[in-house]
Amino acid sequence: VNPTIELLLSHRSIRKFEDRVVPDEVLSTLVQCGQAAATSSNVQGVSVIHVTKPDVRQAMASLAGGQTYVETAGAFVVYCADLRRSMNACESQGGEFVPGMMEDFLISSIDVGIAAQNTVIAAESLGLGICYIGGLRNNPSEVSKLLKLPQQVYPVFGLCLGYPTQDPEVKPRLPIDAVLMKDEYNESGQVELRDQYDETVREYYRTRTGGKKSSCWSEEMKILVGKESRPHMKRFLADQGFATK
Amino acid sequence: VNPTIELLLSHRSIRKFEDRVVPDEVLSTLVQCGQAAATSSNVQGVSVIHVTKPDVRQAMASLAGGQTYVETAGAFVVYCADLRRSMNACESQGGEFVPGMMEDFLISSIDVGIAAQNTVIAAESLGLGICYIGGLRNNPSEVSKLLKLPQQVYPVFGLCLGYPTQDPEVKPRLPIDAVLMKDEYNESGQVELRDQYDETVREYYRTRTGGKKSSCWSEEMKILVGKESRPHMKRFLADQGFATK
Repeated sequence: VNPTIELLLSHRSIRKFEDRVVPDEVLSTLVQCGQAAATSSNVQGVSVIHVTKPDVRQAMASLAGGQTYVETAGAFVVYCADLRRSMNACESQGGEFVPGMMEDFLISSIDVGIAAQNTVIAAESLGLGICYIGGLRNNPSEVSKLLKLPQQVYPVFGLCLGYPTQDPEVKPRLPIDAVLMKDEYNESGQVELRDQYDETVREYYRTRTGGKKSSCWSEEMKILVGKESRPHMKRFLADQGFATK
Repeated sequence: VNPTIELLLSHRSIRKFEDRVVPDEVLSTLVQCGQAAATSSNVQGVSVIHVTKPDVRQAMASLAGGQTYVETAGAFVVYCADLRRSMNACESQGGEFVPGMMEDFLISSIDVGIAAQNTVIAAESLGLGICYIGGLRNNPSEVSKLLKLPQQVYPVFGLCLGYPTQDPEVKPRLPIDAVLMKDEYNESGQVELRDQYDETVREYYRTRTGGKKSSCWSEEMKILVGKESRPHMKRFLADQGFATK
């Protein structure tokens, strides 16, 4: 175990920040760290919009479901999957872009995840705290309008960055034996591991909230996948040119 | 700039490895670093299959389009998007799992990208080299059969890890000004930036191959998005229970 691994293992989301802007040159370095990550077939299907206008940040905070730190963090960026640059490059060579491929949707979305995580690690290595904002997908059409995103670009998530004024505990994860399997997918033992983890999560919430919250992971999952999650997404993505075939 | 940022900026894929196995306890630490990354709504939609059987690794190398390093790397794992664990947890609480949501497909796939990138950074911090294997999606049904993946689980990509016996150059990326935008999506200047990058890539290939290869990024993109990319993916994902609504 070295300092980088210690850093990776100590991640927690930060939602309270100093009133101090992340300088443009720092942000530029962080985004370049994202670019340095692996990218599928060199597509580099990522654009990053740095949102600086206070009224737009306020609107985004509200669109994300009232997440005020979107407004108050030292920087707020939106990570977008971007096939438009590749489309234009293809057409500049006399090619004909094929829109809507599921595979291209997948590679650009995963490129975004991989690049953003490099940005996150770089930020945390500088003592910044971060919080991913998936809540932008509550209202992706509105977000896209605010950022003037054209066809073949969509907002995957936001990212708050800033100087932390809180120091929350690391949230416990599933036991490694539930996640890392040998040679084939294996469900034996999963129920016991889940029960064990449910108890860990319950205890984590109890301690953290002074007994007010006491749900477990399975209860969280019932709420998350026991209903239609963001049922507008398929249509929204199709409207932006993604994932129709 | 600190050692972590230097590490991030020095990434390149490694395809030649020592004949030396990555120990199980090291791999376990690397996957735990992946688990420590942020996860959407705590879904932790990731399972990792460590492929150890030589015949299966040989089959995977072939399914990925003859990528021999899948067979020869010090370890080979397959990162899978996994909603099955969440489905089971939901049902254990009396909930009814809603399959096929595009949003759930997206969050589990992005969880995989984010987690895998943490694993990659941890590995590189230990002096290991890595190579993502998106080529598994050439034949995702066959890969799923070999790994006995059930419904609600699909293989996103493979990851080769090992002790490098090569030291390739870092591949140049798009100029930061093409990728990082202020307040709104902005295409002005993109053509010039792309032309500049095309020349950089051309020079990179020329130098690296002694003049044998001299394509540019736009030419690569013409090949990549100027045809139907892996047109079987939509059907494959639907068969595994993903992204139908």
